Amino acid sequence: MQTRKARARHWFENLRDSIIEIFEALEREAPDALYPGVPGKFERIPWQRAKDAEGEDLGGGVMGMMHGRLFEKVGVHTSTVHGHFADDFARHVKGASQDPRFWASGISLIAHMKNPRIPAVHMNTRMLVTTECWFGGGADLNPTVDEQRFATHPDARYFHAGLKQTCDGFDPAFYPKYSKWAEEYFFLPHRGEHRGVGGIFYDHLDADWDRDFAFTQGVGKTFCEIYPALVRRHIDEPWTGAESAQQAKWRGRYVEFNLLYDRGTTFGLKTGGNVESILSSMPPSARWP
Amino acid sequence: MQTRKARARHWFENLRDSIIEIFEALEREAPDALYPGVPGKFERIPWQRAKDAEGEDLGGGVMGMMHGRLFEKVGVHTSTVHGHFADDFARHVKGASQDPRFWASGISLIAHMKNPRIPAVHMNTRMLVTTECWFGGGADLNPTVDEQRFATHPDARYFHAGLKQTCDGFDPAFYPKYSKWAEEYFFLPHRGEHRGVGGIFYDHLDADWDRDFAFTQGVGKTFCEIYPALVRRHIDEPWTGAESAQQAKWRGRYVEFNLLYDRGTTFGLKTGGNVESILSSMPPSARWP
Repeated sequence: MQTRKARARHWFENLRDSIIEIFEALEREAPDALYPGVPGKFERIPWQRAKDAEGEDLGGGVMGMMHGRLFEKVGVHTSTVHGHFADDFARHVKGASQDPRFWASGISLIAHMKNPRIPAVHMNTRMLVTTECWFGGGADLNPTVDEQRFATHPDARYFHAGLKQTCDGFDPAFYPKYSKWAEEYFFLPHRGEHRGVGGIFYDHLDADWDRDFAFTQGVGKTFCEIYPALVRRHIDEPWTGAESAQQAKWRGRYVEFNLLYDRGTTFGLKTGGNVESILSSMPPSARWP
Repeated sequence: MQTRKARARHWFENLRDSIIEIFEALEREAPDALYPGVPGKFERIPWQRAKDAEGEDLGGGVMGMMHGRLFEKVGVHTSTVHGHFADDFARHVKGASQDPRFWASGISLIAHMKNPRIPAVHMNTRMLVTTECWFGGGADLNPTVDEQRFATHPDARYFHAGLKQTCDGFDPAFYPKYSKWAEEYFFLPHRGEHRGVGGIFYDHLDADWDRDFAFTQGVGKTFCEIYPALVRRHIDEPWTGAESAQQAKWRGRYVEFNLLYDRGTTFGLKTGGNVESILSSMPPSARWP
């Protein structure tokens, strides 16, 4: 198990480095006419969880944040934490009801783009260890202009096709199951609206550690291909004030989802996670007109 | 009980009319140099809850919204609803665990001001009937510039003094108890921050219906005096870009509180309330830089 933990952590941190490199390259590539100013660079901010009563180290992470000219606000974070779940929380976590000890390592990413014609995106994968061990995660696309918010839009099709190909390389049952899960998960019941155009969501994947880990790596690698391609698809498109207003509205829905329903947010806040890091996923601005 | 319900409803709707009149007068009064444009007027939007399976009417309300030049976004809503609580919700409501039927009438108000030097404010009072009957509500002040966010600031002192006077007219134990309750309630544990400078918060007030109702009326009347006075205190003060940035940040905290902790929001969303009305309390804009 120690080797597995180390391998997973190593992967999440390597993936973080790759994504940071790719996003910084996109910052430089963005045309000056549409994106004035200096290309952004990531700042890496390490944080540690407060030690427990016995003075034991409980892990921490690194927040990677960039406030750029193309990426208005993007966070690419890794963390590796361990300790004991609070009792009421442990009851709801696989394998933790009898023994509340846990270890978790993962990467989480959210990109809010300056240009409303470039969809926002979220990606997150992690390995969890209680008395059991599993992987979970997902990726979903969040277009911020109305005309792109349809499953039939070429961007949505392309994003889903990339994830489907990765899923199909492991198990033909994955994509139907995990895309449906994303459809159900990224939904705002009070609005009767989906958060975006979906993607995949998976959890409690514990069939075979090596395959599960390879799949989790596959999701990360696929993300590194498909999202930059979508950014390049729209990077030269100018936008209107009306489109920025739509972006501000859909960013508001993103805020509603994160604070009302997102399990990652709840998990983070209930396990003494880093508040700055957890809430760094919030859009830079939002409007409720 | 029918008479009491009718009297309470009548009061909440009368109070709504008074507040609308006062706020529209302030809109007209605002100096053109600082607040260009036409003074705002309230729009009243009636809504009905969907009928239940037996086709029985379940009540509804009126959303009063104004997007003005002084009041950037203000909602003054009344509603009178009834029906059955969902089982899991009924368990948590006084007098509803055996019989989930309820009736509720109230007023809720939130004002987000254009000028960051004028604090935002929230006020809400209601009568609830299950197998028991009680009043609840409160008011709290939410300054949006850093220098005003202290209990010792003259605005905070004035707001609290007004509420204290009203409380003391009924019971000297009220203000200490209810201001402490507000202090505990309007708090963001994940930030370790208070939402604003507090006020009062009370619930399950069922000592003597006539006195409880009179107290609830007192809170409304006091609000009508103290908040307009605070608006007039700052209405002529110009503001800086730095102050608007502070406002955007504190509005973000307001969003976090409402979606993570506010019972009114939870109550509304779980009882099939009017989503537009419930979320109309969201600030017109917010930033998470």
